[in-house]
Amino acid sequence: MTGIDDLPIRDELRGKSPYGAPQLDVPVRLNTNENPYPLPESLVARIAERVAEAARRLNRYPDRDAIELRTELAAYLTRTAGHHVTTAQVWAANGSNEIIQQLLQTFGGPGRTAIGFEPSYSMHALISRGTGTGWLAGPRRADFTIDVDAALAAIAEHRPDVVFVCSPNNPTGTAVDADTVLRLYDAAQAARADTAGALVVVDEAYGEFSHRPSLLPLIEGRANLVVSRTMSKAFGAAGLRLGYLAAHPAVVDAVQLVRLPYHLSSVTQATALAALEHTDTLLTYVEQLKGERDRIVTELRAMGCEVTDSDANFVQFGRFDDSHAAWQAILDQGVLVRDNGVPGWLRVTAGTPAENDAFLDAVRALIKETNR
Amino acid sequence: MTGIDDLPIRDELRGKSPYGAPQLDVPVRLNTNENPYPLPESLVARIAERVAEAARRLNRYPDRDAIELRTELAAYLTRTAGHHVTTAQVWAANGSNEIIQQLLQTFGGPGRTAIGFEPSYSMHALISRGTGTGWLAGPRRADFTIDVDAALAAIAEHRPDVVFVCSPNNPTGTAVDADTVLRLYDAAQAARADTAGALVVVDEAYGEFSHRPSLLPLIEGRANLVVSRTMSKAFGAAGLRLGYLAAHPAVVDAVQLVRLPYHLSSVTQATALAALEHTDTLLTYVEQLKGERDRIVTELRAMGCEVTDSDANFVQFGRFDDSHAAWQAILDQGVLVRDNGVPGWLRVTAGTPAENDAFLDAVRALIKETNR
Repeated sequence: MTGIDDLPIRDELRGKSPYGAPQLDVPVRLNTNENPYPLPESLVARIAERVAEAARRLNRYPDRDAIELRTELAAYLTRTAGHHVTTAQVWAANGSNEIIQQLLQTFGGPGRTAIGFEPSYSMHALISRGTGTGWLAGPRRADFTIDVDAALAAIAEHRPDVVFVCSPNNPTGTAVDADTVLRLYDAAQAARADTAGALVVVDEAYGEFSHRPSLLPLIEGRANLVVSRTMSKAFGAAGLRLGYLAAHPAVVDAVQLVRLPYHLSSVTQATALAALEHTDTLLTYVEQLKGERDRIVTELRAMGCEVTDSDANFVQFGRFDDSHAAWQAILDQGVLVRDNGVPGWLRVTAGTPAENDAFLDAVRALIKETNR
Repeated sequence: MTGIDDLPIRDELRGKSPYGAPQLDVPVRLNTNENPYPLPESLVARIAERVAEAARRLNRYPDRDAIELRTELAAYLTRTAGHHVTTAQVWAANGSNEIIQQLLQTFGGPGRTAIGFEPSYSMHALISRGTGTGWLAGPRRADFTIDVDAALAAIAEHRPDVVFVCSPNNPTGTAVDADTVLRLYDAAQAARADTAGALVVVDEAYGEFSHRPSLLPLIEGRANLVVSRTMSKAFGAAGLRLGYLAAHPAVVDAVQLVRLPYHLSSVTQATALAALEHTDTLLTYVEQLKGERDRIVTELRAMGCEVTDSDANFVQFGRFDDSHAAWQAILDQGVLVRDNGVPGWLRVTAGTPAENDAFLDAVRALIKETNR
């Protein structure tokens, strides 16, 4: 029987497995940082209406430049992220993964390197591999904050072309302050001062859940700084696959050299536009989830768990001698959390109050069993 | 003012322009091989219905493996392409461009090369560049058929990792026979017999419009042969961005090593499934377009134009001393055709009968003016 390794695939892909969380059929799924609240029925109706409009022109290619969508995303950022953003500063793609892929095809690639501070969002490393970009795993402190001195030293030594800063960081929930980003940015430019500098990508996929303001205003006057965002989490639209970035207009022009033409379908654009009309409602869900996230932190700590401070819609908790066994014990009680491979730690997504209660009960039972 | 070249983009991108046909606002647009027939209103309603269903679960990630969609695409191919195809042999992505990108990330990339026989679909070369794959421009005869002996010699000399065969070929409309594909396939395997061989990609984006049967049955027993397809043309759904491939299941497994997780949105999957329910109706439009395509060929030849035999929903015609001037003269009469950069030739998409009449009138006037 012919298998993958009988095919002429690239050598570095041999023996690898596809990325993706196990999709198990369990009562409470708190493993992929999805928003637990379905879209309101009024928004579902509006999506159907806008998609029907788009479907009447579906024989034609979509707006290749997605002007209306980028205009509405710019308005959303202007309103919520503390900085005036124009259409020319925004670009959209099929999930922030495709945004990151386009950035790496433009600013990374063969003969170039990217650095991230691990543990962090593992797709940064995987998409680097997929685009032929060398990957450098930078350090974090034991409390999962970025060790700035060590990071500056790594940047000076390795002179990366692309620097990823994930804030809030996945899977730890850790926010990064503006001063840290600025120090990393300046160091990255200085290390490559003989060239046009280095691109710094601030991944704010979970930005709306943070206690702190967005890092978006930092793009002002810094053409090599990009902030990436997604509608998957705050807009409750993981199924939509709509990621976007805000940066200097020259960055938006540059990624158009590598973007696949007509990459963003008419139905995706129509659905995203409908969701943006309902921003106010969707942001009330974000507030509820922030409250639940804080409750999970408090209750886990009250049980004696170690919990990493979280600015996201998920919480990293531990520590377990055998985190896989703990993951399985929680799963045995019908609650699916995520083992991101950080030794001793697991990650739980903030769900509905009932889902979070089920999770907290499962951990309580696990601790009781362990202490027996 | 900061521009693209002030940013740390890859050197090979400097001075390049984004791919894409000019999108001009003219009465008759016959430049991008779109299907001129809007989807029937019953299908628009069904799309709205299926998308509303999907939107009720939009807070969750889509089916990462798109099982239902791949099953229906397999059933469509089994019914129309003369070969039984299973779900495991089909993969889908955001347009056949993303299919090609995933194939090149898996089987091409840095240190590897791909060959195509030009003029052909220019995205094969552009996506090769975007994935760091070296590009080899193979030859065609003056009549735009593949010069098989020259192609075999090029394959033996350059030992490409990926071979593109576009049938019907864009922009010429030329179909390729099975015997040619088999000779190229065998030569490509022989040239790389020291490795696991070479991937041969048969791009059948316009396959439904051909006078000949699909080349799909050739995948049987040939694990390195892939057929790519799209719903943009025959299904009248360019705005949907739904491309797919059929191949050995190991190829489908292999591209999952590079595909972005959850690359295909729930709304895209729902819309494509709705369109597949209406296959019979949509294929009647294909028959109408084939008739119009043949009429364009006949009428252009009657005017004294040279016309390349076409198996697609477009026609290559000429020859003009100055094809750009001819393009402009036709545009001045309100009809937008495509100048693909093939010296002396232009390409026109088969539109509605009225659009085709407008085009034919414009060419007639151009010839009259030229002969005056």
